Amino acid sequence: MKKLLLASTSTLHEGTYLSYLQEELYHFFEKIDEILFIPYARPSGISHDQYTKIAQQGFSHIGKKIIGIHTLDNQYEAIRQAQAIFTGGGNTFLLVNELYQLQLIDILRDTINKGTPYIGTSAGSNIAGQTMQTTNDMPIIYPPSFQTLGLVPFNLNPHYLDPDPKSTHKGETRETRIKEFHTLNNIPVVGLREGSWLLINNERITLKGNLTARIFEQGKIPYEWDGKTNLPFIK
Amino acid sequence: MKKLLLASTSTLHEGTYLSYLQEELYHFFEKIDEILFIPYARPSGISHDQYTKIAQQGFSHIGKKIIGIHTLDNQYEAIRQAQAIFTGGGNTFLLVNELYQLQLIDILRDTINKGTPYIGTSAGSNIAGQTMQTTNDMPIIYPPSFQTLGLVPFNLNPHYLDPDPKSTHKGETRETRIKEFHTLNNIPVVGLREGSWLLINNERITLKGNLTARIFEQGKIPYEWDGKTNLPFIK
Repeated sequence: MKKLLLASTSTLHEGTYLSYLQEELYHFFEKIDEILFIPYARPSGISHDQYTKIAQQGFSHIGKKIIGIHTLDNQYEAIRQAQAIFTGGGNTFLLVNELYQLQLIDILRDTINKGTPYIGTSAGSNIAGQTMQTTNDMPIIYPPSFQTLGLVPFNLNPHYLDPDPKSTHKGETRETRIKEFHTLNNIPVVGLREGSWLLINNERITLKGNLTARIFEQGKIPYEWDGKTNLPFIK
Repeated sequence: MKKLLLASTSTLHEGTYLSYLQEELYHFFEKIDEILFIPYARPSGISHDQYTKIAQQGFSHIGKKIIGIHTLDNQYEAIRQAQAIFTGGGNTFLLVNELYQLQLIDILRDTINKGTPYIGTSAGSNIAGQTMQTTNDMPIIYPPSFQTLGLVPFNLNPHYLDPDPKSTHKGETRETRIKEFHTLNNIPVVGLREGSWLLINNERITLKGNLTARIFEQGKIPYEWDGKTNLPFIK
């Protein structure tokens, strides 16, 4: 009974932290009081404590208590016994490196696969995929591996951005970058625009928000997915 | 007698490959007939042969012959004996991985340090820095290390982009990403805008093109460098 909510971003323009997701979070965490928070992606380098405070603010309206995993002595047991788990965004390299150094990758995967509800935003969504290789982040630290939790049979590209037809910038577009990924890898990629999130109940994957997602498969022209059917590459 | 030309990009909007650099290339390679080309960054996944053809077109007007290193049996000797070396842009992870797999990192560093002229564009400029950790590229392959050639005492961020004050996108700006790098690393970063390039003659570093560069040092507010003085962090 796998249950995941994978969001492109924590915050929308003119919104506050998690504000656009409040109704969804209310239903997702209906029977849950406490959520274990993983702050290791440290957006803009803020401290684990600072980040945990921000996460708490995002969950105060629906009355949930947030516990920063960094404050606990036995993080392995904390994951195993958590009512629910939330990983916030930031730098994916830093997040993945921390999870490997603390030897938390396997217990996270096992616990979520057994049914502990999981929510990720941005980098926290990225690690639910097969690998972190479609992150947008800078490689500020060298992790022991790019393999991630593999909770879904694809990779995610959060904050997916459409090419700007008016742009004069010659840096690669997001689409070009993902195509480069597919010259060496055959894992499908879901480009998740800001304001979109995936709800996963076992094998059933639903796209939420008002936007379509852009799907990239090796050797195919990228296409839009409206979420009304299951992802075409899932048999 | 180190001699490097490190460009932010190979191509400007409404220009052709290397067109904006023709005059500089003419002087830089005045006494040189043949340039060894390293095509391993494979932009958009094009083949080494295709990429070498594009590079040849960029150097045809000034009458230089381009030799793709991938066509040679002994690439180590080819670097050692090259008249000049050019590394094109593309994916930095792929480029660095290839250079490590082929065991070419050390001979490249040594040869350029001894005076063989080197030109890089984008990923090819990135590898001249201390590490590849301020690349904009996706981690499409896991290289054995993020260490690069260390030909200059800083890192580069090619295709540097200023934050767009009108943007509603919540993905990290380039400046935020580089600040995240500095939460863990103290290597200065030169943000090189498209249309800019660095000329390096031994320890003397000149900024060319019509734009300033944005300089990031750990613990300091980022600032502009107009190239009229040497880089402030170089003693």
